[in-house]
Amino acid sequence: MVVNNKVDTLTYDVEAAQARVSGAAAGAKTPPPPPPHQHQHVAELHKVSAPERRSTARALGQRLAEIFFPDDPLHQFKNQSLARKLVLALQYFFPIFDWGSHYSLKLLRSDAIAGLTIASLAIPQGISYAKLANLPPIIGLYSSFVPPLIYALLGSSRDLAVGPVSIASLVMGSMLREAVAPEQQPILYLQLAFTATFFAGLFQASLGFLRLGFIVDFLSKATLTGFMGGAAIIVSLQQLKGLLGIVHFTTHMGFVDVMASVVKRHSEWEWQTIVMGLGFLAILLGTRQISARNPRLFWVSAAAPLTSVIASTIISYFCRGHAISIIGDLPRGVNPPSMNMLTFSGSYVALSIKTGIMTGVLSLTEGIAVGRTFASLNNYQVDGNKEMMAIGVMNMAGSCASCYVTTGSFSRSAVNYSAGCRTAVSNIVMAAAVLVTLLFLMPLFHYTPNVILSAIIITAVAGLIDFRGAAKLWKVDKLDFLACLAAFFGVLFVSVQVGLAVAVGISLFKILLQVTRPNTVVKGVVPGTQSYRSMAQYREAMRVPPFLVVGVESAIYFANSTYLVERIMRYLREEEERAAKANLCSVRCVVLDMTAVSAIDTSGLDALAELKRVLDKRNIELVLANPVGSVTERMYNSVVGEMFGSDRIFFSVAEAIAAAPYKTVQP
Amino acid sequence: MVVNNKVDTLTYDVEAAQARVSGAAAGAKTPPPPPPHQHQHVAELHKVSAPERRSTARALGQRLAEIFFPDDPLHQFKNQSLARKLVLALQYFFPIFDWGSHYSLKLLRSDAIAGLTIASLAIPQGISYAKLANLPPIIGLYSSFVPPLIYALLGSSRDLAVGPVSIASLVMGSMLREAVAPEQQPILYLQLAFTATFFAGLFQASLGFLRLGFIVDFLSKATLTGFMGGAAIIVSLQQLKGLLGIVHFTTHMGFVDVMASVVKRHSEWEWQTIVMGLGFLAILLGTRQISARNPRLFWVSAAAPLTSVIASTIISYFCRGHAISIIGDLPRGVNPPSMNMLTFSGSYVALSIKTGIMTGVLSLTEGIAVGRTFASLNNYQVDGNKEMMAIGVMNMAGSCASCYVTTGSFSRSAVNYSAGCRTAVSNIVMAAAVLVTLLFLMPLFHYTPNVILSAIIITAVAGLIDFRGAAKLWKVDKLDFLACLAAFFGVLFVSVQVGLAVAVGISLFKILLQVTRPNTVVKGVVPGTQSYRSMAQYREAMRVPPFLVVGVESAIYFANSTYLVERIMRYLREEEERAAKANLCSVRCVVLDMTAVSAIDTSGLDALAELKRVLDKRNIELVLANPVGSVTERMYNSVVGEMFGSDRIFFSVAEAIAAAPYKTVQP
Repeated sequence: MVVNNKVDTLTYDVEAAQARVSGAAAGAKTPPPPPPHQHQHVAELHKVSAPERRSTARALGQRLAEIFFPDDPLHQFKNQSLARKLVLALQYFFPIFDWGSHYSLKLLRSDAIAGLTIASLAIPQGISYAKLANLPPIIGLYSSFVPPLIYALLGSSRDLAVGPVSIASLVMGSMLREAVAPEQQPILYLQLAFTATFFAGLFQASLGFLRLGFIVDFLSKATLTGFMGGAAIIVSLQQLKGLLGIVHFTTHMGFVDVMASVVKRHSEWEWQTIVMGLGFLAILLGTRQISARNPRLFWVSAAAPLTSVIASTIISYFCRGHAISIIGDLPRGVNPPSMNMLTFSGSYVALSIKTGIMTGVLSLTEGIAVGRTFASLNNYQVDGNKEMMAIGVMNMAGSCASCYVTTGSFSRSAVNYSAGCRTAVSNIVMAAAVLVTLLFLMPLFHYTPNVILSAIIITAVAGLIDFRGAAKLWKVDKLDFLACLAAFFGVLFVSVQVGLAVAVGISLFKILLQVTRPNTVVKGVVPGTQSYRSMAQYREAMRVPPFLVVGVESAIYFANSTYLVERIMRYLREEEERAAKANLCSVRCVVLDMTAVSAIDTSGLDALAELKRVLDKRNIELVLANPVGSVTERMYNSVVGEMFGSDRIFFSVAEAIAAAPYKTVQP
Repeated sequence: MVVNNKVDTLTYDVEAAQARVSGAAAGAKTPPPPPPHQHQHVAELHKVSAPERRSTARALGQRLAEIFFPDDPLHQFKNQSLARKLVLALQYFFPIFDWGSHYSLKLLRSDAIAGLTIASLAIPQGISYAKLANLPPIIGLYSSFVPPLIYALLGSSRDLAVGPVSIASLVMGSMLREAVAPEQQPILYLQLAFTATFFAGLFQASLGFLRLGFIVDFLSKATLTGFMGGAAIIVSLQQLKGLLGIVHFTTHMGFVDVMASVVKRHSEWEWQTIVMGLGFLAILLGTRQISARNPRLFWVSAAAPLTSVIASTIISYFCRGHAISIIGDLPRGVNPPSMNMLTFSGSYVALSIKTGIMTGVLSLTEGIAVGRTFASLNNYQVDGNKEMMAIGVMNMAGSCASCYVTTGSFSRSAVNYSAGCRTAVSNIVMAAAVLVTLLFLMPLFHYTPNVILSAIIITAVAGLIDFRGAAKLWKVDKLDFLACLAAFFGVLFVSVQVGLAVAVGISLFKILLQVTRPNTVVKGVVPGTQSYRSMAQYREAMRVPPFLVVGVESAIYFANSTYLVERIMRYLREEEERAAKANLCSVRCVVLDMTAVSAIDTSGLDALAELKRVLDKRNIELVLANPVGSVTERMYNSVVGEMFGSDRIFFSVAEAIAAAPYKTVQP
């Protein structure tokens, strides 16, 4: 295994290595002082294997399978008869056929209770969120009827409660308003909203179908915390219009514009509205607190919005003629078709696509996160890519039935879960309740005051401000906290889109920074072991001159290969300065611990070759320890493998050091 | 160190671990069969240390220093007197004061020879490259006079030959031409070119000053190979105009447009021009071959361009009146100032900035790469960031003295090196030769035929097509090869900018892909060692049921945390299926080898907690082995540290397995 070296530098050979080992066994001054048998053990060098040779096509196939099918979604189809495969395929695409076959009356009872509970939440929230998106309130109810039914067929989460959500409504409202004023051109605005919803669905379904679901992972939790917090404040500020009864309000979203508008229009403030608004806001926030403190009382906060709507409507009915602004007439009947309103030509298509992608990504992020959270609580798995297809198809169908963007809502899903839902039937029950409302109860909402909707929205979004999460970020990761802050202020002071762009930008920058400036450590041996560990982490670890052991903790790539070479040269310089000061022998061999080098590309291989050439010129040996499979394979495929040869690539750092012909000296 | 576990799952304790060890020592069926002493050795568990606690400010400071000053550029200033520090600072910013102090007549002789050699190359190339950028030929000479002088003051490379280069000229020409036709508005075009040069210099100097030099590393070698190859072909095709003597040629760059134009205008082909062009092209390419085969004859190809210019000018002079198109009158005299031509307002500023950044990045990439290559050949170091400042200042100054973008040219630097240059004085000699040309020899170029310039350009760019490099990419890394091809065809069939964008996009995508889909491996013990290695790489490695050892080879990040949890669950499922089939006991403990996990963020910590919860529910233990410093620190700062506790975080996989209360069974 150890052969003579053909290059004109220091020569390794078996005799020298063994001489060194016997020296160590004879008690030469070798730190650390491990028992002699271990040294002998190390001297039996182990071969560094490369993984089995694969054809190019096979290697590429495996790589692609790992990228697109990491969860091996077809494993249940293996070794099944054709008929069984068909049944499995049906169940795969329509999970309802899976859980539906063993559905029981007992499950139905649980689902019915949960469904009615979320309906009581969904109806007022639906009306409110539609207003947030500058849409007629009825659209919010339509969107709480058709999409839940479709999700019940296609979705694999048992706990997701589907309907409009605040963040996507806000983003759609703010993006479309920039181009079209909903008050002046209500029909055009509605067309754009439906078209954007269609594109959102198309985008979501494509991501799922193409198995590119990992794209939503690029919105990190840290930046989402900041973004959500900022958006929640923006949404709440918008509600000052309803809460204070202001008629002429700014259409801008920024913090400064809104506050200026509030102050400027103080003559329009309505005391009746303010009293009613603050009163119900206090009730709603109070019930939230009760439920938060005692999870068994979840129904208190779940029932509060509908109760408030009913109470405020009654008050408003008796005070009619006063200044409190009311919703007014709402059309009766189920969703009208809206296929004819989708517009795929003209000057607004780009805007629709942009809005669709933005709201699509955001609603997907929320829906997938909610699905995963409750799946893990109940110990089942949801397939992210399949969920994306379900949500996407639901939105595409919704856009043809007068619905705007919907997804799994966090607040309503939590209530659904607490109320004891067992399957997606709770969504069907909720849809049925919304249907009854649409058919018979619409006139009852005539006197519902707008102020109560504002109070409901504020209560809902208040939960999105996550102080504790931000504090945790500060404690654990300052850079994550910075990203969170940047997204927060971006939303608050510039715009929702800028906030989102900043959030994504910082997330990507963080990844790239980590890749360009990977960790490197100088390693020493931990006394009493054969393990070489970071000297910064293990203070008891000891240097082993004349060796310099450097660990690289990252793939070696074009983006960091230059840096790594320079960094290793700097370690060498520092080590030599240290040695010169302490009057020790200088470094004669650099051992590169490749354990954590997960991959290498052509630039990385060139960098290794370059490092070897530079060190050769200075008469310093460079050896590699423990390269992983793919790296070994690449090295042997390139000229670098020949350059190093099997006599300079070792199974471990310990073996590399044991095999070298110099004695280690006590520092 | 090992304490009782407070969570309601399996319990580790010292007695059980020791019972297991003695069982092993008594010869229980435990693979692999290591000598008993080793087991006892492992049973003395080692503590996983966290790095020394640092204050937030200190940690941030160290992080930033590692990002921006990885090479510790100020190390030579440490422990020096103030006067010495001033001298060092002067030498730092003006390296000429460093090497100038021990300059000798002997060095001058070498430099003078090298300088005259590169001047003979720089004069014809300067004129040719200016034409490539659609600029008057004289600008190319101006650019070979001022910038080399400035570089000699500021640059730290001894071998760089400074002047215009082909790729940057091509990109500037193609980007500016899209907005302004140089034939119709020559003054405006010139203004834009100088302004773009100014911005290129500003951008380059800023990158260096802000120590963001790593940004150029994002152009990977693979994509550059493709981009350069495509650009070389585009440039060569453009030369068909001069080579065939066509008068009315397309102004587009794409392969299809150019070929169509060549065929359509076949009536304009000039046989005299074609004969002369092909003749000189053959001579130039032939001399290149001679020099490539015998490096000592480097001067043959170095002298060929100037010789060809002289010969062709003489021929053209005697054939005057014939159809061969000639350069015509060139102004005499040194660079006129062009400060007044820089325009920082108006509708073209955005174009100037964009062109500046593009050409700036490209010329920087070439300059830095050339500098590093020759520095490593001569065993000295160049500081990338300092070089960027030097090149940037040189271009900013150049833009005020009628020069366009310049950098270190690969071909001329290679000649400089071969001709024996020793310091940057060779650039000064070259500038002097250009000065003499500008002052006295310009009339001699009157009859120089344009066709010879085309031949010179083709010869120069032919060297940029790197078939061997592309073949190496195919052999080592298919994805790199794909990136190379994409950049190549992007340049060839769409446009230079698209090609460059594709190149950068693919490079970034590759990084992100690696981050989202990191490597994970199932590990087994290598017989005769205590080392756990990938089962795919080491075929002799053996599983140790009921343990499942999984190694993660990447930082755990928001972008991959979901994937990793799912992937580990899949390994577990596969392992359990395997165990069920072989009638073995199922997995009772998952050991996560964190050796290669170089970092973790808040999402990653959440993912670990999530994985632990899921496994707890299935009554499977999750333990961590060998977390690195920063990861250990973060875990102990967050709730995850408490969740695992020090009794579930081990020094190594071997110790984790030795400490567990179950016996390993032979598979």
